[in-house]
Amino acid sequence: MTYSLSGTMLLGTTAVSGTEASFKAINPATNASLEPAYATASKAQVEQACALAHAAFPIYRETGLEQRAAFLEACAEEIEAIGDALIERAMQETGLPRARLEGERGRTTGQLRLFAEVVREGSWLEARIDPARPERKPLPRSDLRQRHIGLGPVVVFGASNFPLAFSVAGGDTASALAAGCPVVVKAHNAHPGTSEYVGQALQRAVKRSGLPEGVFSLVFGAGNVAGTALVADPRIKAVGFTGSRGGGTALIQVAAARREPIPVYAEMSAINPVYLLPSALEARGAELGKAFVASLTMGAGQFCTNPGLVVAIEGPGLEAFEAAAVEAISQSEPGVMLTPGIAKAYQQGVEAQAAQAQVLGRGKSSSEPNRCQAGLFSVTAQTFLADEALQGEIFGSASTLVRCRDEAELLALTAALEGQLTATLHLDSEDKPLAARLLPELELKAGRILVNGWPTGVEVCHAMVHGGPYPATSDSRTTSVGTLAIRRFLRPVCYQDLPADLLPQAIADNNPLAIWRRIDGQLGKV
Amino acid sequence: MTYSLSGTMLLGTTAVSGTEASFKAINPATNASLEPAYATASKAQVEQACALAHAAFPIYRETGLEQRAAFLEACAEEIEAIGDALIERAMQETGLPRARLEGERGRTTGQLRLFAEVVREGSWLEARIDPARPERKPLPRSDLRQRHIGLGPVVVFGASNFPLAFSVAGGDTASALAAGCPVVVKAHNAHPGTSEYVGQALQRAVKRSGLPEGVFSLVFGAGNVAGTALVADPRIKAVGFTGSRGGGTALIQVAAARREPIPVYAEMSAINPVYLLPSALEARGAELGKAFVASLTMGAGQFCTNPGLVVAIEGPGLEAFEAAAVEAISQSEPGVMLTPGIAKAYQQGVEAQAAQAQVLGRGKSSSEPNRCQAGLFSVTAQTFLADEALQGEIFGSASTLVRCRDEAELLALTAALEGQLTATLHLDSEDKPLAARLLPELELKAGRILVNGWPTGVEVCHAMVHGGPYPATSDSRTTSVGTLAIRRFLRPVCYQDLPADLLPQAIADNNPLAIWRRIDGQLGKV
Repeated sequence: MTYSLSGTMLLGTTAVSGTEASFKAINPATNASLEPAYATASKAQVEQACALAHAAFPIYRETGLEQRAAFLEACAEEIEAIGDALIERAMQETGLPRARLEGERGRTTGQLRLFAEVVREGSWLEARIDPARPERKPLPRSDLRQRHIGLGPVVVFGASNFPLAFSVAGGDTASALAAGCPVVVKAHNAHPGTSEYVGQALQRAVKRSGLPEGVFSLVFGAGNVAGTALVADPRIKAVGFTGSRGGGTALIQVAAARREPIPVYAEMSAINPVYLLPSALEARGAELGKAFVASLTMGAGQFCTNPGLVVAIEGPGLEAFEAAAVEAISQSEPGVMLTPGIAKAYQQGVEAQAAQAQVLGRGKSSSEPNRCQAGLFSVTAQTFLADEALQGEIFGSASTLVRCRDEAELLALTAALEGQLTATLHLDSEDKPLAARLLPELELKAGRILVNGWPTGVEVCHAMVHGGPYPATSDSRTTSVGTLAIRRFLRPVCYQDLPADLLPQAIADNNPLAIWRRIDGQLGKV
Repeated sequence: MTYSLSGTMLLGTTAVSGTEASFKAINPATNASLEPAYATASKAQVEQACALAHAAFPIYRETGLEQRAAFLEACAEEIEAIGDALIERAMQETGLPRARLEGERGRTTGQLRLFAEVVREGSWLEARIDPARPERKPLPRSDLRQRHIGLGPVVVFGASNFPLAFSVAGGDTASALAAGCPVVVKAHNAHPGTSEYVGQALQRAVKRSGLPEGVFSLVFGAGNVAGTALVADPRIKAVGFTGSRGGGTALIQVAAARREPIPVYAEMSAINPVYLLPSALEARGAELGKAFVASLTMGAGQFCTNPGLVVAIEGPGLEAFEAAAVEAISQSEPGVMLTPGIAKAYQQGVEAQAAQAQVLGRGKSSSEPNRCQAGLFSVTAQTFLADEALQGEIFGSASTLVRCRDEAELLALTAALEGQLTATLHLDSEDKPLAARLLPELELKAGRILVNGWPTGVEVCHAMVHGGPYPATSDSRTTSVGTLAIRRFLRPVCYQDLPADLLPQAIADNNPLAIWRRIDGQLGKV
């Protein structure tokens, strides 16, 4: 079987043309449109995707650990089987370079395989057993057991900036499938061909694994119509979204207005402060300036964890940092942005920032379409604290340096920050007392704290947190990257005095799944 | 030190009179009002409680496991030290009998001590370490570590129906304190004296434990003013509530409209279906009818898990059940309800139900104030399915028997149910095939499934789930009873490449806390 594009949605096993307005992908490097056209979903087609997911849920959520893990691995294999056509198409649709997309494919298949391991290991079931105590006084205790089950069908919105790792088969999809939840993906209109390819791969994996077809569907939509209809559908039980603050907020409102409100995991907006502490700055200000610009301009700055804010105390180290950063940024190439809309919003954001802050430096410009001319700005802490608009995210290679007069101002600024995905400290040994004062503040502001690194680059592993307080995400209790993400799509159920032959395997006597369980509160494999 | 009532709020270590309208508790058995008067909080007093909690949070959240556990135990000891005055006052304020309140006190102190065990054991920190892999290709892996920290100050609303176990030092308070979150309790106006006593106990425990005073405050409020102000305060990071659907929904809206929306754990409304499966019904219909009425009328039916719906297939067994239930209910005594408002709402609910359903039986009536005359109603499944209003909760000893013609109707009814705290099956061996068909449906509808028991009575243990899909609760991913409740008030934070001397103990090298941790995904005590 080979993979080719047909401009269709995937409703379960069926490839279907949408019946509403159609669109074509645009190559942002040239503004040329790309075949084929993608017609968008009608309300009835959205409902069909939800109905299929609903029908698949009872069977899929009770798949055995091995079967579900093998399915996730089959998803990874099928994505690899698409071959270079996937990379070629993604390059055309996003303007991202080959190496980046090949790496992202590896990350995508890697996280599917990591979730397969998580599923097999079985701790996500969080099995607990409190055995009956018939002799207890004054009242006997019943036999009580707990496991976690999937919430139900999940809608995942593909993100523009990770056409593979945060899109059709990205982190949200992988964690929802791992949790036993069927997924309906609303493709991002910036990369429909990439989405169709990956959708076909998942569709084949579903078929290969003998699962009900509704485990996965892919729809295209124009404007917000299909997305809103998906979130409003009563059969949908949770939503994963990565995108703008406005888009996330709109979906949260739709979900809250339902007869049965549902959780929305929206990753929205962050400027990811980077603190340059005094000794580190003094020791290697110029080096930090250069490395900072490399992180800022990578991929035209189109990362959720892009370092959009630099915080430092004034002094000679800061002058060296600034000079090196300005020099580096002036030589930065104008990267292609993901879409004309993103390029336009970036341009507007930079212009607005230039009206409020000092322009320290700009990157090279280009007359080619949709190029990102990097921008570095500077304000005093006083100005920053006086104007909330300066905290807004500019998606792309723009960052603002905030000059603090002293530690007190640096701490006041920290207290005034909104929630963030990351916070970074550059420090030397002498900076540790200040770092120790900052850390408790930063823990309350960010999902991940880094020392002497750069926030771009999110490892897919067990300890990762890609999340954080609002507006970084809509739910700071979770992560969208790393194995803990499976928990977003689970809920606990308690079973009291069930006969042995009606108990789910996870909490049956003698631990047939050989998983970690908590018996009377004690962890063990019994 | 002795305990006595002064009609004051507790803002940290200070006993303060409210500056707004005052109220007195009412003895619902007699409608007599009880001294002292309780003046309610001004906006400034609410703010002060939040400011104290905010100030206490950085210190409290980093208390050691042993110190925090000992504090929870001190809370339990101080509650016991109040002595019989607490039980006497609670009896007057609630109309609940001594034995029930003594049992509830034991449950309250027991759950504080259980959370102390949980804190000491340390798994709630969910420590994860993915060690650095400097040699990895193409990119080295950083050192990544994760722990959970408290969300921040929590507002807890006392519930009317458990003046001890779901009130000032109840489950929400215990789990929030265990998670490292200071608590501001908004007392329920039905039992201000009970609240003041318990508040004093917690205040003393805070002092005894050398903790910052803002770890606990207690405020009184008139109407929704203080409660709304508390939930809207930017220093508050989560809310626990047990009460009506209307009250919970209002708080959810306040929390969602904040600049930084926060989670609200509202336990609201359930009718807790009890299924009488055919063989069980045939074998012991009369016995089940009697036991059902005992569960229904216990405590005037004022339990969140009260069996408000009975579902059965028509047949001789059902006739026997019905006859026995009607006989038992006709002899049921009219219990005192918790408040005049609750008694009035019950009366209205029963009248509305009587207009839509057949009245099978009523309990004894009384001319004394605020008595609950039990009510048993009956409708066909067809009628039930046609009218959503029949699913509404009537708080008190009222229940509706739904007669199904066959299994198909019983399954259709199940599919149409809203979310529930519990679902109960009475079954014999021959009923297991039907039970096996029902269980997957019920898992999606309820937080706890019981076999051959009654849902009233919620064990505080590790495996309990007191939760369930909306509207049973606002967040089905959690529980408000049992040790898993600690998770509601925690969020994960990731630490990347932190120097060893800046790492929190939970994720430091060599496991200084000797807790379960996950190293590269493997659970162990290393």
